[in-house]
Amino acid sequence: MIIVLKSGSTDAEVEEVCHRIAAMGYTPHTIRGELRTVIGAVGDDRGKERLRALESLECVESVTPILQPFKLASREVRRANTTIAVGDVSIGDRKVVVMAGPCSVESRAQVLEVAERVKAAGASVLRGGAFKPRTSPYSFQGLEEEGLKLLDEARRETGLPVVTEVMETEKIEVVAAHSDILQIGARNVQNFSLLRRVAETRRPVLLKRGMSTSIQEWLLSAEYILSGGNPNVILCERGIRTFETATRFTLDLNAVPVIKKLSHLPVVVDPSHGTGHWEYVESMALAAVAAGADGLIIEVHPKPEEALSDGAQSLRPEKFAQLVREVLRVAEAVGRC
Amino acid sequence: MIIVLKSGSTDAEVEEVCHRIAAMGYTPHTIRGELRTVIGAVGDDRGKERLRALESLECVESVTPILQPFKLASREVRRANTTIAVGDVSIGDRKVVVMAGPCSVESRAQVLEVAERVKAAGASVLRGGAFKPRTSPYSFQGLEEEGLKLLDEARRETGLPVVTEVMETEKIEVVAAHSDILQIGARNVQNFSLLRRVAETRRPVLLKRGMSTSIQEWLLSAEYILSGGNPNVILCERGIRTFETATRFTLDLNAVPVIKKLSHLPVVVDPSHGTGHWEYVESMALAAVAAGADGLIIEVHPKPEEALSDGAQSLRPEKFAQLVREVLRVAEAVGRC
Amino acid sequence: MIIVLKSGSTDAEVEEVCHRIAAMGYTPHTIRGELRTVIGAVGDDRGKERLRALESLECVESVTPILQPFKLASREVRRANTTIAVGDVSIGDRKVVVMAGPCSVESRAQVLEVAERVKAAGASVLRGGAFKPRTSPYSFQGLEEEGLKLLDEARRETGLPVVTEVMETEKIEVVAAHSDILQIGARNVQNFSLLRRVAETRRPVLLKRGMSTSIQEWLLSAEYILSGGNPNVILCERGIRTFETATRFTLDLNAVPVIKKLSHLPVVVDPSHGTGHWEYVESMALAAVAAGADGLIIEVHPKPEEALSDGAQSLRPEKFAQLVREVLRVAEAVGRC
Amino acid sequence: MIIVLKSGSTDAEVEEVCHRIAAMGYTPHTIRGELRTVIGAVGDDRGKERLRALESLECVESVTPILQPFKLASREVRRANTTIAVGDVSIGDRKVVVMAGPCSVESRAQVLEVAERVKAAGASVLRGGAFKPRTSPYSFQGLEEEGLKLLDEARRETGLPVVTEVMETEKIEVVAAHSDILQIGARNVQNFSLLRRVAETRRPVLLKRGMSTSIQEWLLSAEYILSGGNPNVILCERGIRTFETATRFTLDLNAVPVIKKLSHLPVVVDPSHGTGHWEYVESMALAAVAAGADGLIIEVHPKPEEALSDGAQSLRPEKFAQLVREVLRVAEAVGRC
Repeated sequence: MIIVLKSGSTDAEVEEVCHRIAAMGYTPHTIRGELRTVIGAVGDDRGKERLRALESLECVESVTPILQPFKLASREVRRANTTIAVGDVSIGDRKVVVMAGPCSVESRAQVLEVAERVKAAGASVLRGGAFKPRTSPYSFQGLEEEGLKLLDEARRETGLPVVTEVMETEKIEVVAAHSDILQIGARNVQNFSLLRRVAETRRPVLLKRGMSTSIQEWLLSAEYILSGGNPNVILCERGIRTFETATRFTLDLNAVPVIKKLSHLPVVVDPSHGTGHWEYVESMALAAVAAGADGLIIEVHPKPEEALSDGAQSLRPEKFAQLVREVLRVAEAVGRC
Repeated sequence: MIIVLKSGSTDAEVEEVCHRIAAMGYTPHTIRGELRTVIGAVGDDRGKERLRALESLECVESVTPILQPFKLASREVRRANTTIAVGDVSIGDRKVVVMAGPCSVESRAQVLEVAERVKAAGASVLRGGAFKPRTSPYSFQGLEEEGLKLLDEARRETGLPVVTEVMETEKIEVVAAHSDILQIGARNVQNFSLLRRVAETRRPVLLKRGMSTSIQEWLLSAEYILSGGNPNVILCERGIRTFETATRFTLDLNAVPVIKKLSHLPVVVDPSHGTGHWEYVESMALAAVAAGADGLIIEVHPKPEEALSDGAQSLRPEKFAQLVREVLRVAEAVGRC
Repeated sequence: MIIVLKSGSTDAEVEEVCHRIAAMGYTPHTIRGELRTVIGAVGDDRGKERLRALESLECVESVTPILQPFKLASREVRRANTTIAVGDVSIGDRKVVVMAGPCSVESRAQVLEVAERVKAAGASVLRGGAFKPRTSPYSFQGLEEEGLKLLDEARRETGLPVVTEVMETEKIEVVAAHSDILQIGARNVQNFSLLRRVAETRRPVLLKRGMSTSIQEWLLSAEYILSGGNPNVILCERGIRTFETATRFTLDLNAVPVIKKLSHLPVVVDPSHGTGHWEYVESMALAAVAAGADGLIIEVHPKPEEALSDGAQSLRPEKFAQLVREVLRVAEAVGRC
Repeated sequence: MIIVLKSGSTDAEVEEVCHRIAAMGYTPHTIRGELRTVIGAVGDDRGKERLRALESLECVESVTPILQPFKLASREVRRANTTIAVGDVSIGDRKVVVMAGPCSVESRAQVLEVAERVKAAGASVLRGGAFKPRTSPYSFQGLEEEGLKLLDEARRETGLPVVTEVMETEKIEVVAAHSDILQIGARNVQNFSLLRRVAETRRPVLLKRGMSTSIQEWLLSAEYILSGGNPNVILCERGIRTFETATRFTLDLNAVPVIKKLSHLPVVVDPSHGTGHWEYVESMALAAVAAGADGLIIEVHPKPEEALSDGAQSLRPEKFAQLVREVLRVAEAVGRC
C-alpha cells in the first residue's frame, strides 16, 4: 500500500501513521518528497483492505494498493493457462469452444430441436435456462425443475454437456444433478453466499461478469470459488453498462486481453447478451475469437419472434450454422483450431 | 408498445406484425408515416416483455414500451405516499428519519458505544452489519449470528429499532428475529430469490439500489416484494457506478425526485457508501434532505482508523452529532420537520 | 510518481528504471517489498505525464501519480476561496448567486420579458444563448450576433450582468463586447485553443464541466485559463453521462464538495441541463445549495412548450419565482445568505 | 415522434396537444389505450427536436423520436458503402487499411524512422500529431507548424499519405496544406464551428468519436460535415468512458456493426487510444478487423519509453510489423483482403 499524506503533515503525524502501519503488521518506508510525504507499507496486502481505514485520519490524503487483491486467480501464482474438461470438451485449450442453445427452455420440442441443430452446426456445449432471473416479476420465470429434466433429456439425446444457471443455494443440488457446468449469472456475480456454495460442488462454474463489475472485482468473485477449493472457473464476459443505448449492453472485449494478462483462467464471451440484438451477434462473436477468447456462448431459438425471453437477441439455427463456419475461419487465422 | 418497422416494409409484413400483435392479446393500431410505418399495440403491457421478441423479425426496427413496467410500486396505482412504521418511527412521513451506526458490528463495546452516541445525537434507527458482503474473500466477513445478538442487545439498551443486512434466504429467519428492518444490499438488488423470500416475512425491507441498477429496474425489484404481499418497502439510494473516480461511487440524488414522481414508496439516502469518503458525507447528507429524501443512513464509528470495514467513509460520533444539527436546519427549511 | 515493477524484475531492470527516472530530473527511492519492487520518483510531478511513458518498459507494471496535476487551481496554492466580481455581484462569496434566463435568445420580446421576470424573482445574472452548440445541424442554431444585441439591450433595461456562450475563437471579441461572463460550454471544455484565448480576455469565464470530464480533467481545463493569466474562473457542474436514462444527464452534486476540497474556485450548478426535465429542477436546485454550491444557473422561458431549444427543461417564470423563495430558505439554513 | 400523455389526461388536453402538433406542421394520430393516450406525429422529424418541447406541458409524460435524426449519414439515404480515395489508398473498400505512426511528431529523425518502418511493415497511411490536445497545460503541446513540415517531408520520402489533427479553425489551411486527411480529435467531436469549417475544405476527414459521444450523436457530427458539402467522412472509434479502469478507455467495438447497419460511412478503429496500453493493442486490433472495421490507426514509436506523449500505448516498430502480419490473416479470414 502507498499512503500519501496531506501537504503540511507534521513529523508527529508521519510517526503516528508509521506506528499504525507497523501495528497492522506491515513495515513502513517513508519517502519525503518536495510537496508530499509518502509511506510505503511493505507486506502482503492482497485482499487486505484494512489499511484503507487510514484514510479516515485527518493527515492522510489517500491510500492506494499496489498489488492486485486476488491470489489464486492470478497469473503470478499460476503461469500456465487453466484448462477445464467437461466430457470430451476442454475449455481454455487451443480450440475455441462454442456453447449454444435457447435463452429459456420453453418446451420439450423446442429444446430438443435446438440441441440437435446447434450440435449439427458445430456447438460442443448446450446452454439453456431453467431458472431465469427476470427483471420483472411479471415476466416468464422459467420451467424450473421441469426445464432441468428437458435439458437432461437433450443431453442424453445429443451427448452435448449442458450449462445452466443456478440462482440460489437451495437449488444447487438439483441443478448439479441435471447439468455439467453451473452458471452464475451477471446479477449474482457478487452473491457471495452462492459463490461459496458452488465452490463446494467442485463442478465447473461459468462465472458471468456483472454489468457493472470491474475486472478486478470479477476476479475477486472467482477467488471466492477458487479459495473455496474449486479450481474449475470459466469467466464469461457478457457486456457492461455504459451510456451507449444503441446496444443493450456494451460488450467489453478489452476484458479478454486484460484477463489473459492478469489470470490463468479461461474466458468465454456472450455476444447475445452483450449486444442484445441478433444483427450484431455475428460481428462480435468473430471479434471475440480474434481478441483471444477461449469460447463463445450464443443464444439460438427456432422461432425467435415467439421466444418467451430474449427473442430479440437470438439467432435462428441456420444463421447460427453460418456463424460457426465463420468463427472457424477466424479461429484458424489466430491459431486457435 | 410502439413497434417501428424498417423503411420499405411491405403491406404483407405490416399485416404479419399486426397479426402477431393480435395473437399476443393486444390490439394493433397502424400509423403510416412518410418514412416509416409505426404500429401501436394497445393493451396492458406493464411487465410484459414478450412483444420485444418482435425485434427478431427482419422487418422490425425497434420495439419500445410506453408504460413503466411496474404496477404496485407506481404512483398511478397509489397516489398517496406510503409510510412505514417501525416502532415509534414513521418512514416516509413528514419528518426526516436518521439511521446511523457502524458499517460492521465488531464488538460488544463498539456497537453499544455507537448506539448510545447516535441516539443521543438524534438518530432514530440503528444500523450495523452482521453478515457482510465483501468484494474479497480475504476481507473481514462479519460476526454473523454473534453480531446479530449484539445488535439485539444494543436495541434493548437504547430502544432504537435495528436495520441490518440479510444476504441469503437461509438466514432470513435469524436476521428477522434480531432486527426490525431487513436490508437488501446493493449487490443483491436483483437476487430475485431473496426478494421473493423477504416478501413472505412481511417485515419492512430497506432495498438498496444496485450500483448499476436503473431506477426502473430498482422499482421492478421493489415490485417483486410488493407483489409477494409485502407493502413495506423503503428504497435506498447509495451511489451508482460512473467514470468519475474522485468519489468511490456517484451518489445519484436525481433519483430522489424521480422516485417521488414515479412511486409512492419512501426513499432514503446513504451518503457514506455513495461518496466513500467521510469528508463528503455532510454535504451530501444535507443535499439529500433538500432534494426531498425521507431519511438518511450514515456510518458512524468511534475509531474509523481502526474499523474492520469502510473506515474511510465513517464519521466520528462528534462529527455525526454536528451533522444531525445541520440536517435539522435544512429539513426545517424544506418543511420536513 | 510511484512506479511499480512486475514481479520477478531483476536488479538490472530496477537499476535501469532508476537511471531513467534520474535522467528525467527526479530522485528515485526504491522500496523492495515481498512481492514487488516499488520506486518513488521524488520531484514536482504536477502536470508532467512523461514518467507515464515508463509503462512501455516490459518490467514496469504501472506508473501512478501522487500529486494532483493542477497547480494554480489547487487549494494548496491558494487556501482562501476565490471570489469573482461581476458588476455588483460577487460569485464565490457568502451569498448564493442565481443566474437565470432562456436557453436560447429567440426574440426581443422573449428575452426582455424573461429578463424582467427573473430579475423580479431575485436572479442577479441573466443567462441566454446567442451562439448555440446543437447536436444536430438541422436544429435551431441561435440568433448569433443579433442575439447578442438583444442580450445587451436586456442588460441595459434590467441592469443584470449577462452570461452567454462563446463557441469559437473568432467570436470571442464580439461576445465579450456584449456580455459580462464568457461561458465555455460542456462540449468545449477540452477545446484547448478556445481556453487559451478566453484566458487572454481576462474576463470572468463560466467553465462548464463536460459530460464525461472527470473532476481532475475539469480542473486542468481551468488551469489552462488560470495559467494563461486569467484568474476569474467559475466552474459549473451540469451533469455527466451515465447509464441512467430517467434523467437526461446525471447531475453530479458530489462534485461540489470535491471541488471545494481540491480547489479555491467558485462552483455553480445547472440543474436544468443536469436533469433535462423541468419537474426535477427545483429539487436539484435546493440540493445543490445544501451541498455548498456558490450559485445556480437555471433556464426560464415564458412559454416552454414553444421554445426553440430545451423547452422540456425550462421553468415558467412563476415556477422560477417560487424556486428562488425556497432556495433562499435553504441557503439561510446552511449559512449562505 | 410519439407523444405519450399522462394517465387521466382530459379530452381537452388531448385536443390541445394535437393542435400544437398540427401547428408545427405534423399530422397527429391519436391512439387511446387502456391506460394511456398516445399521439403519433407524422411527418419528417429527422433532426427536428422542437416537438420535444411538448414535454413541458403538464399533461405530457414523454416525447420519443421514431426516426434516427441524421439523414445524409444514413444507410437509408445511401445503401452502398462510401469509399474514400486518398492517393492510392481506398478507405471503406474491401481491403483493410492500416494507418500508423507516432502519437506526436517529436523530431525529424523520429518521424522519418517511424514512417519508413511502418511503410515497410505494410501501413498505407502515416499518422502523427503536430498540434496536440493535451489535458494539462504543462504537457508537451506538439511541434505545431514545424511538426507539419516534418510530416510533409516524411510523406515525400515514403509516399505515404498523412493524417494529422486540426484543433482550431485558424489552422485548417496550414494543416490542409501539409496533409491528406484532417483528423478531428475526440475532444472536438462536438466542436460544431470546426466541423462546419472542415466541411468547406472538401478534404477527407477522420472524425473520432468522443469519449462520451453516443453513436447517434457521432453520426450527427458527421452530418454537420456531410451537410456542409463534404462527403469524405471516415469515422474512427477510439474508446469510450466507462467505470472500468483496467483499460484507459473502453474500446467499443460494438460500434462497428452498429455503424455498418445505420450508415454507409467507413469506420476505422484506434486500439492504441482505446486501450491505453501497448500490451492490449494487438488483440483489439485483430478483434476490430474481425468485427468488420475498414481500417486501423495505430501508434508506433521507436522508443516508447522516451515518447513525449502516450508512450505507454505505443508499439515498437518490430511489434507493429508482427501485428500487421496477423491483421492480414484475420482480414483474409473475414474476406477483407
